[in-house]
Amino acid sequence: MHSSRVLGLAIVAAALPLAALADPLPSWNDTAAKARIIAFVDGVTDPDAGTYVPEDDRIAVFDNDGTLWAEQPLYFQVLYALDVLREKAAADPSILISDVLTAAVEGDMAGMMANGVDGLVEIINVSHSGITVEDFQADAHEWQTTATHPATGLTYAGMVYQPMLELLRYLRDEDFTTYIVSGGGIDFVRAIAEEAYGIPAAQVVGSQGNTSYAVIDGTPMLLKEGGVSFVDDKAGKPVGIMRHIGQRPILAFGNSDGDFEMLEWTTAGDGPRLGLLVHHDDAEREWAYDRDSHIGKLDRGLDEAEARGWVVVSMADDWLEVFAE
Amino acid sequence: MHSSRVLGLAIVAAALPLAALADPLPSWNDTAAKARIIAFVDGVTDPDAGTYVPEDDRIAVFDNDGTLWAEQPLYFQVLYALDVLREKAAADPSILISDVLTAAVEGDMAGMMANGVDGLVEIINVSHSGITVEDFQADAHEWQTTATHPATGLTYAGMVYQPMLELLRYLRDEDFTTYIVSGGGIDFVRAIAEEAYGIPAAQVVGSQGNTSYAVIDGTPMLLKEGGVSFVDDKAGKPVGIMRHIGQRPILAFGNSDGDFEMLEWTTAGDGPRLGLLVHHDDAEREWAYDRDSHIGKLDRGLDEAEARGWVVVSMADDWLEVFAE
Repeated sequence: MHSSRVLGLAIVAAALPLAALADPLPSWNDTAAKARIIAFVDGVTDPDAGTYVPEDDRIAVFDNDGTLWAEQPLYFQVLYALDVLREKAAADPSILISDVLTAAVEGDMAGMMANGVDGLVEIINVSHSGITVEDFQADAHEWQTTATHPATGLTYAGMVYQPMLELLRYLRDEDFTTYIVSGGGIDFVRAIAEEAYGIPAAQVVGSQGNTSYAVIDGTPMLLKEGGVSFVDDKAGKPVGIMRHIGQRPILAFGNSDGDFEMLEWTTAGDGPRLGLLVHHDDAEREWAYDRDSHIGKLDRGLDEAEARGWVVVSMADDWLEVFAE
Repeated sequence: MHSSRVLGLAIVAAALPLAALADPLPSWNDTAAKARIIAFVDGVTDPDAGTYVPEDDRIAVFDNDGTLWAEQPLYFQVLYALDVLREKAAADPSILISDVLTAAVEGDMAGMMANGVDGLVEIINVSHSGITVEDFQADAHEWQTTATHPATGLTYAGMVYQPMLELLRYLRDEDFTTYIVSGGGIDFVRAIAEEAYGIPAAQVVGSQGNTSYAVIDGTPMLLKEGGVSFVDDKAGKPVGIMRHIGQRPILAFGNSDGDFEMLEWTTAGDGPRLGLLVHHDDAEREWAYDRDSHIGKLDRGLDEAEARGWVVVSMADDWLEVFAE
């Protein structure tokens, strides 16, 4: 904080309640983006303002990959799936029934990506099946909190964004309910959501693999099967929100064109609305990518954000800190 | 309340805090079922007891049809679908493209049921599609609160069970989170859940029709399509609970074999668990049906309840009141 600002605050301190002094977003620079967020929250929480929104309607939704934590060089769930696949293949090479799976365990990224997203789903199907939901979450949690990222050396759980943690806390302090709405698998995200973000399992919306109920040796359990039953991405995000939450949010925060429809639907409602996009423009502290990226492509969103009144948050300019760890 | 009980209460009144005097379940007779419920709640909420359960894990799930409100002579959602179908067919008879649909609008119950549940799904598909989720819920709510039941003359919203309303409130007062887990359609149940039961949309789990996102004339909307994407019944109930809530409940309340797996999974967990079944044995005040019923069949549940420690709640013996209206 600049010393002139400290001095200014000291002068008015006697006239303000303590809460007004505390900056709810200390890892955000004092730019227009931060001002827009705070003005929005002030507006919907002021009972005397025409922009007031009752607590039950203060629903805020956040994409996960690239919005709450990093997503390069590949979605962390894919990196996890590759680790599991390699481990399974070492024990039983016969599971490598396709060129994509073989390429994946050999570290041949071009071969692994040859079938695009279908190939990634195939890898996840093989690595994330034949296990109970509870055991899967325990294993994923262990990986998220102990395995380290190849580029940063941080744990994956340590690569959540500090400014977003502050925003989540700030919104909850102002009686918002915060949800994750992720294209990633719901069980993978839930494994870390409460611990990393303070978001309980019931407030996580995500893509879903097939799950079956079975009683095995007298013990009822839920088993992860291969195959995908719901894709929570693009137009699937508003659908997933309606399925889980049952009402339209008033704030939506994403970072890619996979979040476009979520922001579009959220901000088209009546009354005050806020749509935001993280722009990854910080090659020094994180990564710089947008229109041409193979992960987290942001193209239409950049074109239309201004006309739609969405806030484009520059990681380089608007964030004082990046990673929480 | 019996006068001897009032006298007894008056004698100990000076020694007890006010809350301990109020009966949380006044519409329940003082039978073993009520005692089991209260003992369970006391056990999980007493921080000094070995049976204590933290608030975040106090998840209670309730079936809807036959558990929170009545379900005879047909699920209320089917009665609603028939009303909508008749209205649509009057405007455009060409929508009656099958014998089941024709039988349905002609009031030919045998013909309508000729294909079993598939026929009911067909009726719901035709009547519940081509409409936004919001408009559907508004229409369903209007019907639930103004149309009247052929046998009782009550509104459908008035046919919720007073003892269950008290139980829901009692559990929430004791820091449980209460969920509906219904075989009925999630949008139909949500239309009345908050108003009738104090349960917000996000705490309703149900069967799901296909829903699509579309921008029409510049307005983003969610449209109900034909077809069913998830059936929240039988083994689907534990799956639906894991999808929405993400954790195993500690209390489950149902009334039919469609709830068997939900109770089985709930009560198989570690620590204190409670499974309950409403037994419709009250032909005088409601209906009497169980093993041979076409709706709400309860057969395996009756056979196994005692061995599994589940409470069978007799509507005739355990409930002082039935309908809320």
